[in-house]
Order: sequence, then structure tokens, then C-alpha cells
Amino acid sequence: MRPHLHHTHADRAPVELESAFTVDSSRVTFGAGSLGEVGDRVASHLPDPDRAQGGRVALFTDARLRATEWYDDTLTSLRRRNLEVVVFDEVLVEPTDVSVEAAVAFARETCADAFVSLGGGSVMDTAKLANLLATHPGDLLDYVNAPLGGGRPVPGALKPHVACPTTSGTGSEVTGIAIFDLLSAHAKTGVSSARLRPTEAVVDPRTTASLPAAVVASSGLDVLCHAIESLTARPFTSRAASSPATARPASQGANPWSDLGARQAIELIGRYLRRAVADAHDDEARTQLMWAATLAGIAFGNAGVHVPHAMAYAVAGRLHDIGGDYRPVGYPQGAPLVPHGFAVAVSAPAAFRALAATAPFRHLEAARLLGGDTAGVAPGEAGDVLAETMAGLMHDVGAPNGIGGVGYTLADVPDLVKGAAPQRRLLDNAPSQVHEAELDAIFRDALRCW
Amino acid sequence: MRPHLHHTHADRAPVELESAFTVDSSRVTFGAGSLGEVGDRVASHLPDPDRAQGGRVALFTDARLRATEWYDDTLTSLRRRNLEVVVFDEVLVEPTDVSVEAAVAFARETCADAFVSLGGGSVMDTAKLANLLATHPGDLLDYVNAPLGGGRPVPGALKPHVACPTTSGTGSEVTGIAIFDLLSAHAKTGVSSARLRPTEAVVDPRTTASLPAAVVASSGLDVLCHAIESLTARPFTSRAASSPATARPASQGANPWSDLGARQAIELIGRYLRRAVADAHDDEARTQLMWAATLAGIAFGNAGVHVPHAMAYAVAGRLHDIGGDYRPVGYPQGAPLVPHGFAVAVSAPAAFRALAATAPFRHLEAARLLGGDTAGVAPGEAGDVLAETMAGLMHDVGAPNGIGGVGYTLADVPDLVKGAAPQRRLLDNAPSQVHEAELDAIFRDALRCW
Ligand SMILES: NC(=O)c1ccc[n+]([C@@H]2O[C@H](COP(=O)([O-])OP(=O)(O)OC[C@H]3O[C@@H](n4cnc5c(N)ncnc54)[C@H](O)[C@@H]3O)[C@@H](O)[C@H]2O)c1
Ligand SMILES: NC(=O)c1ccc[n+]([C@@H]2O[C@H](COP(=O)([O-])OP(=O)(O)OC[C@H]3O[C@@H](n4cnc5c(N)ncnc54)[C@H](O)[C@@H]3O)[C@@H](O)[C@H]2O)c1
Ligand SMILES: [Zn+2]
Ligand SMILES: [Zn+2]
Repeated sequence: MRPHLHHTHADRAPVELESAFTVDSSRVTFGAGSLGEVGDRVASHLPDPDRAQGGRVALFTDARLRATEWYDDTLTSLRRRNLEVVVFDEVLVEPTDVSVEAAVAFARETCADAFVSLGGGSVMDTAKLANLLATHPGDLLDYVNAPLGGGRPVPGALKPHVACPTTSGTGSEVTGIAIFDLLSAHAKTGVSSARLRPTEAVVDPRTTASLPAAVVASSGLDVLCHAIESLTARPFTSRAASSPATARPASQGANPWSDLGARQAIELIGRYLRRAVADAHDDEARTQLMWAATLAGIAFGNAGVHVPHAMAYAVAGRLHDIGGDYRPVGYPQGAPLVPHGFAVAVSAPAAFRALAATAPFRHLEAARLLGGDTAGVAPGEAGDVLAETMAGLMHDVGAPNGIGGVGYTLADVPDLVKGAAPQRRLLDNAPSQVHEAELDAIFRDALRCW
Repeated sequence: MRPHLHHTHADRAPVELESAFTVDSSRVTFGAGSLGEVGDRVASHLPDPDRAQGGRVALFTDARLRATEWYDDTLTSLRRRNLEVVVFDEVLVEPTDVSVEAAVAFARETCADAFVSLGGGSVMDTAKLANLLATHPGDLLDYVNAPLGGGRPVPGALKPHVACPTTSGTGSEVTGIAIFDLLSAHAKTGVSSARLRPTEAVVDPRTTASLPAAVVASSGLDVLCHAIESLTARPFTSRAASSPATARPASQGANPWSDLGARQAIELIGRYLRRAVADAHDDEARTQLMWAATLAGIAFGNAGVHVPHAMAYAVAGRLHDIGGDYRPVGYPQGAPLVPHGFAVAVSAPAAFRALAATAPFRHLEAARLLGGDTAGVAPGEAGDVLAETMAGLMHDVGAPNGIGGVGYTLADVPDLVKGAAPQRRLLDNAPSQVHEAELDAIFRDALRCW
């Protein structure tokens, strides 16, 4: 088998295509009570795990989580190993460059031997960036993906980081991605490197018992999009080969490994999301959702997401510009905000409807796994069926009804297109070509979902 | 959710049971041509990947593989990164303590910065042990599992090891296990530690084009047993909790992570093993089998195998005692030998038949995934259906017909029982209690499979 040669549209020069994929994950511990293991796990990564004075740990969390028993469990576990714990609890929900800078300053002063994050994606991402900039020189923007930032590669390993997610959830505990809102650019952006991936993930599904319903709904829809976007991303064999091979990106496209986690996550979301949102005491549903979140993280961390996530960056980033006042119950009420999961979900049905023609069987499979009725559906209807199945779920869990549901109107579409179009890394991972014209059509269709 | 308390049969003292599982894998690169990446990948783990003189690599392989183009590809890839390559090609198929000692002596002299293994389980396991004993002090037996060895824990990280499997296959490229025949004890044994797990796996399915049919059959049945045994192992929640948590063993029992890889592997074996054995040019079938092998390795490396593998240690280890003369075509003809995959498979249908009563739905699911007709089958018949489905596959791919097929008779059963009974680590991972009486019954039933 020789690598395939492929002529690009631009110059007709032959490009060598990928014939391999590379996958990776953090070590994952999953189970009720596992926060009690954090101390042992952190200690195992320090030079001398058995000495009496165990080292200094920077513990990242946010104000709400600090008041929970999950915080107490984590602290107790760390102290039992004689670790000195220094706490940063000022993580901003949906972090910005400004909030991240504060965390970086804290980390640089603390000179910690290891990092622990206890919280949702906001906390874990902030800890990743603080670890990066306390371990290596440079400014936040140096490491941000081009064109907004310098695109500097992370020069070496970071300090050990044990990530403990408390939402179900971003999957950030197993990915090398950290996202924040770059205020000056009115856009979400981030840093992506395998070196940002936490050393270990400790996933204790008990933590989700205290999650407000809206956070379960929003973060659960984020999981669903991670999974469907991974499953429907362009196949890894359609990308140009990387050189050196070790430079193969995490957004390498759909592959048999990411497919496995993605399929299982979609099925679990279809089966358990409504129950988990409706009842905080439904342990089974909340536990299964937490597992789905980690699986979808492993999937998209090794395949990449695409159009709905690219569009979400604009949907979340431009709310301020339109004087939007969306403030979902269950989230901090200080400032208007579209939580990441809702920001992704509002455009997703429209995006899948538009993209399904290139990969109808995968879209149909996603609809079936999610619980949609796909018996006798023709491939040409795959996009509609998936869009409707997902919209039905969004409706039932109280998600906003499209981008209109968070305050955008037809007049805002050109601006949203301008916000999403530069996200080439994500858009190029779509199953077909997506540029301004396609984004424009999808945003219009996304004004409402049902 | 509080951890469950459980009274053991022995002393009625309450034991705290596990409520979490921990899973891990090597970084995996999979795809046709990926052997060309070995140099880049090794270099990325050396202190200065970019210096002109890149470091010294110990390349492990066996005599047959050294003559193939896969060896040339690997060497070329390493040399392109200016790595100095020192070759050990004397790995014994089904290694023994004596053959491993020779590899250790080589590794100690070589002072390599990194290890590369190109071959089947025999090569990868030998390289793991050579890496262990060239990096840390002690003798082979010090690190062997008790009771045969000292059970000393591996004291620290090993040198980087990029494992390149060429059979489909043991999954050794992603496990922390290394197996060899301890000649003095007439038994197979091994070393097990997360630290033995290769740093990276580079899985190039092209390599299987040169595999003899019997090796495809034997190693494919090994994959099937890794997957079915992982799926039917006792649930992780039935084990006593480990302290510290980081001491949780790889043989932790079935869990949602191992289930995922195991299910997919069983399905792929059912769909592709007959084709892959029948036709060396069936690229699709051989590629899918190679993927199944890695997935099953990830599954059993995080769940553990049980009865068929415990019995295989006796089946393979006692052949010499009975003056057996089994020499399958396609394997080196120097000495009689039961290849690992066949050694496991010959007892597997009988073991599954005996064990299914405790976990009928999982056994039925395995039968269905393997392609068996399970419509309308009652749970009480699950073991029979799985045993027959597997026996049918064994028959079609030319496997020996039970332990009788490799030369054992009823008179040998007591001796085989004595060989298998000490494998408590494996036997305790079974879905129900297995001691001498149960082993005796299973070995009798395993005299023939059809
Ligand atoms: N790095 C990645 O791979 C990745 C992937 C997707 C999203 N993200 C980012 O993650 C962020 C969103 O993270 P999120 O959805 O996990 O939510 P979040 O971290 O923003 O938290 C949402 C709210 O829930 C609260 N909360 C969290 N856990 C709780 C618990 N157990 N009990 C009670 N309250 C709890 C928080 O205090 C906060 O008010 C966004 O910035 C998004 O861009 C990152
Ligand atoms: N470490 C683990 O996790 C693990 C798991 C299962 C089995 N094992 C061990 O692995 C060993 C068996 O390994 P195996 O089944 O991979 O076979 P193997 O390594 O013993 O090789 C079998 C034969 O096939 C030849 N061969 C291998 N690849 C070839 C290729 N591409 N082309 C032509 N010939 C090729 C070899 O030279 C050898 O003659 C046993 O010792 C077993 O105990 C280890
Ligand atoms: Zn997301
Ligand atoms: Zn095996």
C-alpha cells in the first residue's frame, strides 16, 4: 500500500496524503469517590513521592466550587500526602485573557511542583495556561494559534497536572486544548499542544450532583457536539501528510479510534441527558453523562471538532457587541454570557443539515445513536433527521432556540460570519469546504432550531 | 454514593470494594507506512531531538523479521534522524529466561538511549525486559510476579521504547506485561508494571502481508481471547480497593473503558479473521485485524485476562514434559512449540462454557459480536453458544482441536491443573471462583473443541 497522491484544487501539484493517525490520552481514573485519590496521584509524579514534606501544589478552582464538599475532599486528599497546597479560586467562568493573566501571575509567584484543577472547562483550561506560562517563558499571546497569536510551539513538558472535571463536560481533562476569550479581538481563541494535556484525569461523577440543571444541559450538549463533530469530521486520510510525522495535529480528522469514543458518547447522551437535566438525584444518568464527557473528550482530542465549534467562537464572543443580555439561570449572573455548550449547540443542527451531503451515512448513524428514528430514511435526508433529532433534545433540556434564542437577529449574521470565518483550523476539519458563503447560509438557518 | 462494603467468605471482615478504575495506554500511531515515522518518534523522546548526532538506539527484532523490508524501513527511518542503531536479532520465538538473559546482556553493554522493537509479542516482550534490566539493577527473577519470582516493583521510569508490532497480535505494544518461559519451573511467567508499557506504539498493518497463515490464525485467536476475557472478567467493582490508589493493578476487572475496545475487537475478529487467514493479499482484512489487536491490547491491558490465559501457561509450558511434538507450519521448526494464541484458544471454549453462568449476558453478547446466532437463546445457553461460535472459527482457521490437538490426553490433565492453579492473579480475575476442581473440569472439557 503506497500513500495516496492527491491533486489540490489550488495548484494541481501532487500532495502526499496521510495514511496514519496518532492518538493519545491522559491516564484516566473514573469513579465515585476518586477525588480521594488526588493526593496519591499527585505524589506519584513528584521526584520523591515518599518523603515527608511532599512538595507544593497549586490548586485551581472557582468561587462556587470552593464552597462545595468536592473541594474539601480534594484538599484532604492532598494534605494526607503532606503536600503544601496553595489555592487560586478566582477562575472566571468562560475565562478571558485578563482572567488568565491573573492566574498566570499567581502560578509564577507560587513556583508549584504540580498543578491540580477542580472545576469545569473554565478551571481546567485556566490551570493549563497557568502551568504553561509558569513553566516556560513568554506571554499568553505568543502561544495562541495564528493568526490572533504567535503560534509558538510549547517548548517542552509542563509540570504534572491532575485535572478533576466537575461538569459533564468539556473533556478538557484529556485534551491538549485551552480556550479563552481574547477581549481585544472580541473572539474566543486558544492554545493547542499535546503538552497541555493533563498528566492524569481524576473523574469523580459524584461532583455532578451539585450541578445546576442548565449547566448539565449546556455542558451535555457540548459533549454531544464533540462527539458528532468528531464522527463527521473529514477522514484523516484526506489531509496532507505532516512532516515530521510527530507534527501531526490533534485535529487530524475522523479515525477509527475517535469513532469508537464518539459513537458511545452520542448513544449515552441520547439515553441519559434528559434524565440527568431533569433530576439531580438520578445518579445513574449523571454518572453515565460524566463518562460520555470523558469519552467525547478522548474522541475530539484526537480527531478535532469543526463547524459548530468555529461558529460558537463568534456566538459567544460577539454577545457584548450586540448589547445581548442572555444570562441563563444556574450560571453566574454578573455579566451576560452564552455558556460554551449552548454557544456550540445553537448552530449545530443547521451545520449538520448543511454538511450531511458529503458524509450522509455518518450523519445518519449519529441520528440513530442519538435515538432518532432512522428506519427507511434515505441518505439525502440524513442531515434533516440529525438536525431534528438534536433540536428535539435541545428543546427538551431547555437550550436556547437557535442563535435567535440568545439574542441575535438576521442583521447580525454578517458580523457572526466575520467572527467565525478566520477559524480555519476548525473549518478545515469539516467534511466539506466551508467559507463565508457557507457560514452565512448556516447562520441564517440557525436563527431558530425548532 | 458510598463505597460498597462486602464480607469475604474467608473471615467475614468487611472489605472496602473498588468504586473507581484507572486506564492508560501508550501513544498509538496506526497506519500503512507508519514504520517510516519511527525515527521521528524516537528522536522526539531524546533530550535534544535536533542535534546532529541523535543518540544510540537498541533495535530488537528476530532473525526472520531482519530479512524483511519492514526491517529496512525501520532502519532507514532511524538513520534519517542520525541515530546510531545497534541491532539485537536473536530474540527467541516464545522467549525463555535464557533467551531474555542474552538480550539483557546485550542491552547492558549497549547503553542505549532508547529502545525500538520490531516484531511480534516475542520481540516486544524481550525488549521490555531488556530495557528494564539495562535501566534498573537486579535480576530478571527479582521482578517476576510472586510466587515464582521476587515481585519487586519496577523502581522508576524506563528508557523510551517505541514498539512496532508485526503480528496481529498480542497487543504488547500497549501493555505493561512481558511474558517468558521460565525453563526451570516448566511454566510461563512474566513481569507486569505500568512502567513496562512502551512509550509509543507504531502499528504498520503492511507488515502483516508477510505473516504466515498459521501466525495470523494463532495471534488472531489470542486477540479474540484478550477481548472476550476482558469483557467477561469480574467487574472492577467486585475487587477490594487498593491502597494507595496508585497501586490499582492493570488486572482490575471489566470496566466501561475496556468494554469498549473489547466489543469492537470481537466484532472485527468475527468479521475478518477467516478472510485474513485465507488470503495474505486481503489488505482490508489484515488491516482490520491489526487494529483489533491493538484495541484488544488496550482492553486487556486495563482489565486483565483470566482463565484461558492461566490455562495456556500450562498448555504451552508442559509440552516438553509429555514429549509433545506439536510444530505448526509457519512457525520456526527447531523445537516443538504451542504458539501462545493456540495455547490460549484450545481451552477457551471450555472455559467460557463453564464460566458463563455468572455473567450470561456478557457471554451472549460476545457470541453475538463474533457472528454467532443468538436470536432467542436463553441466558442459560450463553456459554454453549459462545463456545460453539468460537470453536467454529477455530476450526475454519486451522487451529488445533482442543488440548488433544496439541498432544495432551486425559492422563495429562492432573499435571496441567497443577501448572495452571498457581496463576492466582489471572484466575482471581475470572467472573466466578476457579480452583483446582474447576480447572480439572475445564481441562477435561477442553480435550477437544469440536
Ligand atoms: N479545553 C477543552 O478541550 C475545552 C473543550 C470544550 C470547552 N472548553 C471551554 O470550557 C469552558 C466551559 O466549561 P464547562 O462547560 O465545564 O463549565 P464552566 O467551567 O464554565 O462552569 C460552569 C458553571 O458551573 C459551575 N460548576 C462547575 N462544576 C460544578 C459543580 N460540580 N457543582 C456546582 N457548580 C458547578 C461553575 O462554577 C460555573 O459557574 C469554556 O470556556 C469552553 O470554551 C474547553
Ligand atoms: N506482553 C503482552 O501483553 C503479551 C500478550 C499476549 C502474548 N504475549 C506473548 O507474545 C508471544 C507471542 O507473540 P506473537 O503471537 O506476536 O508471535 P511471535 O512474536 O512469537 O512471532 C511468531 C512468528 O511469526 C514471525 N513473524 C512475526 N511477524 C512477522 C511478519 N510480519 N512477517 C513474517 N513473519 C513474522 C516471527 O518471526 C515468529 O516466527 C508469546 O511469548 C506470548 O506469551 C505477550
Ligand atoms: Zn466544546
Ligand atoms: Zn494473550
